[in-house]
Amino acid sequence: MTNITQVTVAGGGVLGSQIAYQTAFKGKKVTVYDINDDAVAAAEKRVNALRDSYKRDIQATDEQFDAGLKNLTFTSDLNAAVANADLVIEAIPEKPSIKHDFYTSLAKVAPDKTIFASNSSTYVPSTFAGDTGRPEKFLNLHFANQIWLMNTAEIMGSSQTDPAVYEEIVEFAKEIGMVPIELHKEQPGYVLNSLLMPFMGAGGMLWAHDIADPETIDKTWMIAMGSPKGPFAIFDMVGLRTAYNIISQRQGDNPQAKPLLEKLKAMIDEGKLGQESGQGFYHYPNPEFQDPNFLKA
Amino acid sequence: MTNITQVTVAGGGVLGSQIAYQTAFKGKKVTVYDINDDAVAAAEKRVNALRDSYKRDIQATDEQFDAGLKNLTFTSDLNAAVANADLVIEAIPEKPSIKHDFYTSLAKVAPDKTIFASNSSTYVPSTFAGDTGRPEKFLNLHFANQIWLMNTAEIMGSSQTDPAVYEEIVEFAKEIGMVPIELHKEQPGYVLNSLLMPFMGAGGMLWAHDIADPETIDKTWMIAMGSPKGPFAIFDMVGLRTAYNIISQRQGDNPQAKPLLEKLKAMIDEGKLGQESGQGFYHYPNPEFQDPNFLKA
Repeated sequence: MTNITQVTVAGGGVLGSQIAYQTAFKGKKVTVYDINDDAVAAAEKRVNALRDSYKRDIQATDEQFDAGLKNLTFTSDLNAAVANADLVIEAIPEKPSIKHDFYTSLAKVAPDKTIFASNSSTYVPSTFAGDTGRPEKFLNLHFANQIWLMNTAEIMGSSQTDPAVYEEIVEFAKEIGMVPIELHKEQPGYVLNSLLMPFMGAGGMLWAHDIADPETIDKTWMIAMGSPKGPFAIFDMVGLRTAYNIISQRQGDNPQAKPLLEKLKAMIDEGKLGQESGQGFYHYPNPEFQDPNFLKA
Repeated sequence: MTNITQVTVAGGGVLGSQIAYQTAFKGKKVTVYDINDDAVAAAEKRVNALRDSYKRDIQATDEQFDAGLKNLTFTSDLNAAVANADLVIEAIPEKPSIKHDFYTSLAKVAPDKTIFASNSSTYVPSTFAGDTGRPEKFLNLHFANQIWLMNTAEIMGSSQTDPAVYEEIVEFAKEIGMVPIELHKEQPGYVLNSLLMPFMGAGGMLWAHDIADPETIDKTWMIAMGSPKGPFAIFDMVGLRTAYNIISQRQGDNPQAKPLLEKLKAMIDEGKLGQESGQGFYHYPNPEFQDPNFLKA
């Protein structure tokens, strides 16, 4: 058991609200902080909207869901939000200036004991460690969307992170139902995106260079690996806009990637964004690759 | 229905014997050719040894397996082997000089009607098209190990392959129970290895650069993708020697790949070759990643 009982989640967006509710669902006292009353109201709405998913996907009862809600409070007062926090999980927008400002403000009001953890997808902890006033108590704790199902928590310290703090966060991740994914060093993209990006890139290149069709490429992977999803089902899951942005950042200078970026852009312009828009490489909610005959033809 | 009823499989090694038996199992008349009587006897033994797998994995009865055997003949006489062949599937050793010689000899004895298909893993069809005397009737037809389960057949023509011949081989693949994977152009590695190599490389790099442990990396992928295998389970399946050889060929000049090659080499030197030796990243036949608790901790 860790000593972490009071948790503050800063930022009640899509993932922040999931992190907050999952932590509360597992019995911690959770305060959700966001920047103003409207944002707080939106966060509370998002949390309440999770009820159906918890009931459907992990068979939670209404009573269990309600017990989780009782562990939650919401505020736009940062001082009050962190006054007694053992841990602040930061899930605010992925803009460096916003994060620098937030950690600078947080450092002034949080008690010395408070551990800070960033859910940042793209920045390693050393980026903001200097703003925290406590680099030894700062690390990244990165969750996946649909936290109640995709229950990995990637844990990455900087060279300054105290190993005891790292271990405590590993235990905390288990306490809130996560499988801790321990990184020994800073790695942009953590483990998952470090696997996913080359994999999606390789599939995307076969398609963009007209070697094979998306369905054919997905079938090949699904049969050979016994996997429920091939690379294009994953493009749809990640979302074509996100995939496009990441590939442009990583491969924008690579002339080999140009046809892939052009083809993704054309789909995005047609509104084929993946699962979120109901259509990408497949049609949702019943995508072709889930048809039992998909692997037979 | 294709007009392909008489099939010759040249080379009765591990994959050649599987291709021959699967084709016979699906009702084609199949002749297995190998270079001498010893090789032919070994091929016949390999084919007979498939009985248990067909019974266990696809619930074939003894009668069904025996019916397949009745469609097979074995010979070391190339002339006799191909005298009436509609299709020759070449599954001989992956050495260019051996393949050049084989196609040159085959071209002299095969009837004009015969289609030639190479199971080569590493050479695109244009490499040998000039030896065949019939580049328009030559293409690659690439199978996976454990053909009765991993039933993909990757089909790749050269620019000289007649589209009608290509289509006939697509239909033939279906007739023998394969899912045809159609490539529109030559691509070294086909679809599967074009996905697999960057994926295994990405996982391998995380391990070799001490970012995370193999089990942790596999867990991350398995949870996020709902997949039964992560990259290190795949290393074990492919075999560490094969993986080492491919990575050296593709990435031997990349200093980033050096630690990965060194760590694979050390395991190979210890006899940890993957599934084939009973130990690689996991222990077989009951690897740790298949334990139901593997994804819980």
